[in-house]
Amino acid sequence: MLKLGGSVITIKNRAFTPNREAITRLAGEISDSKASPLIIVHGGGSYGHPLAAKYRIAEGFRENRQLIGFSKTHNAMQSLNILVVEALIEHGLPAISIAPSSCIVTKRGRIERFDAEVLSRSLKLGFVPVLYGDAVFDCETGFSILSGDQLASALAIMFNAEKVIMGVDVDGLYTADPKIDFSAELIERISLSELEKLTNKIGGSRATDVTGGMVGKIFEMASSVASDIDVVIVNALKPGNIYKALRGEKVRGTRIVKG
Amino acid sequence: MLKLGGSVITIKNRAFTPNREAITRLAGEISDSKASPLIIVHGGGSYGHPLAAKYRIAEGFRENRQLIGFSKTHNAMQSLNILVVEALIEHGLPAISIAPSSCIVTKRGRIERFDAEVLSRSLKLGFVPVLYGDAVFDCETGFSILSGDQLASALAIMFNAEKVIMGVDVDGLYTADPKIDFSAELIERISLSELEKLTNKIGGSRATDVTGGMVGKIFEMASSVASDIDVVIVNALKPGNIYKALRGEKVRGTRIVKG
Repeated sequence: MLKLGGSVITIKNRAFTPNREAITRLAGEISDSKASPLIIVHGGGSYGHPLAAKYRIAEGFRENRQLIGFSKTHNAMQSLNILVVEALIEHGLPAISIAPSSCIVTKRGRIERFDAEVLSRSLKLGFVPVLYGDAVFDCETGFSILSGDQLASALAIMFNAEKVIMGVDVDGLYTADPKIDFSAELIERISLSELEKLTNKIGGSRATDVTGGMVGKIFEMASSVASDIDVVIVNALKPGNIYKALRGEKVRGTRIVKG
Repeated sequence: MLKLGGSVITIKNRAFTPNREAITRLAGEISDSKASPLIIVHGGGSYGHPLAAKYRIAEGFRENRQLIGFSKTHNAMQSLNILVVEALIEHGLPAISIAPSSCIVTKRGRIERFDAEVLSRSLKLGFVPVLYGDAVFDCETGFSILSGDQLASALAIMFNAEKVIMGVDVDGLYTADPKIDFSAELIERISLSELEKLTNKIGGSRATDVTGGMVGKIFEMASSVASDIDVVIVNALKPGNIYKALRGEKVRGTRIVKG
C-alpha cells in the first residue's frame, strides 16, 4: 500500500496546481520498483482541500448551495487522479482509477460500506488500483470527506497489506517542529504507545488540512499498525525514497511499530 | 433518464476530440429545462471506442498487453466525463460523476452486480448523477465493455424512470438509410414488434461501434419499453431538441411504444 500525500503531488498554497514533476518522477519510481501487488491512494492537496473547506463538505449537508461544492470537490479530485493514473500508464503500469465516492458510503465520516469486489478483481488481474481522498456520501450526514489516510489504512487492513508506505513532504516524525526548533530530531522508530504521547504533544500544530494534518495521519495509521502492518513515513519529494521504500531498502524516515 | 450519444459529445473519426460546443450547449439546455430528478448517461464516441477496439476489451481478458488498454480506455472515458460534468457544473447543476467500473461488475458483458446505493443517495440529495459507457470488470471474462445504452436502459428500469431520451446524431429511425436512400422516411412512432422486424432489416448497417450501432441501441432500449418506460430518440446535435424533450414538448424524433 502506497499513500502519496496531497502535498507531494500538488503545489501547496497554489490552488489546482499539480506538481507534474513529482508525479512523473514518482510514476517512474513506482514502475521501476516492480512492486506487486500494489494499491495506491493519493491525497487532495491544493486540488481538494480549498473547495472542501469553502463548502464545508466535511460537516455534512446543511444547505443546498453545498451541493455544487460537493460536485466541484469530486470533479477536482477526479482531475488530479487522471494526472496520476496517466503518468503511471505512461510508465507502463496498468493503473486503474477507482472512484471512492462511487463505491464507498461513510457514517459520520468513517467508512461504513465498501464493496471491495472491483478492487479485488482488479488486483487479481494484475492492475494497479489507484484511489484517492474524496467527497463521499454519508448515510447519516448526507455527505462527508473521506481522507486518503483513512482510506489507505482501511484498505491495508482489508487486503492484509505487507506494509503501508506514507509518502509525505517531510522526512518523518520529529521530536519537535523542525521548522522552528533546531534541536528537533527525526524519530526513526516509534511504538504505538509512544505515538499516543507524541500525538497529544503535537496536536496543537494541526495545519489547515480539512482531513487533519500529521495528527490525523498518525491516528489513521495506528489502526494499520495495530493490525500488524508495518507503516513507514518517508519524504516522497526526495528522489529515490519511494523506490527504495517499495523495494524494501533502507530509507530515511519514521517506522511505526506495534510493541 | 437522458442518454447522450458519444457521437454527439465527441467529434466522429477524430480520436480524443470532444465536441466542446455541443457539450456546453447541451449543459445549458439541460439546466434550462429544470428536469428533476435526472440521471445522465453518456457514450464514448471517439474517446472510448478506438482504444476499446484496439485492445479488444469487449472480448475479455486474453493477454497481459490488454491490461494497459483497459487502463487507457477507462482513463479516456474519465477525461471525457470530466468535461461533461464540468459543463453541467458551470451551468449551475450539481452534477456528480459515478464511475461505472468502480461499482458495476458484468457477466459476459451484461450487468450482473450494481450497488445502487450511491446513485440513490445522490438523487435523494438533489444531485444529477452522470454515468458513462465504460471498460468494466466481468466476473466471467475478466473485463468487458459496458455500453452507455445498456447502462441507461438498466438504470431507467431500476429507478422506474418516467422516460428515456436518447440524444443521437440523427433525427431518429428511418425506413431506410437516409444517407444513401432519398426515399427514406423518419419513423415517428414504432412498436416493439415492428422494431423487431426493422432490426433484422438494418442489422447489416452496423457501424464500427464496439458497443453496437443503432441495432445495439434499439436492442437495449427494447427492455425499457417493455417495462412501460417511454423511449424517444432525438437529434441532440440540433439546438433545442434536448431542452424540448426534457420539458416534454413535441420534438422531431422516433418514439418507441410498447403496444
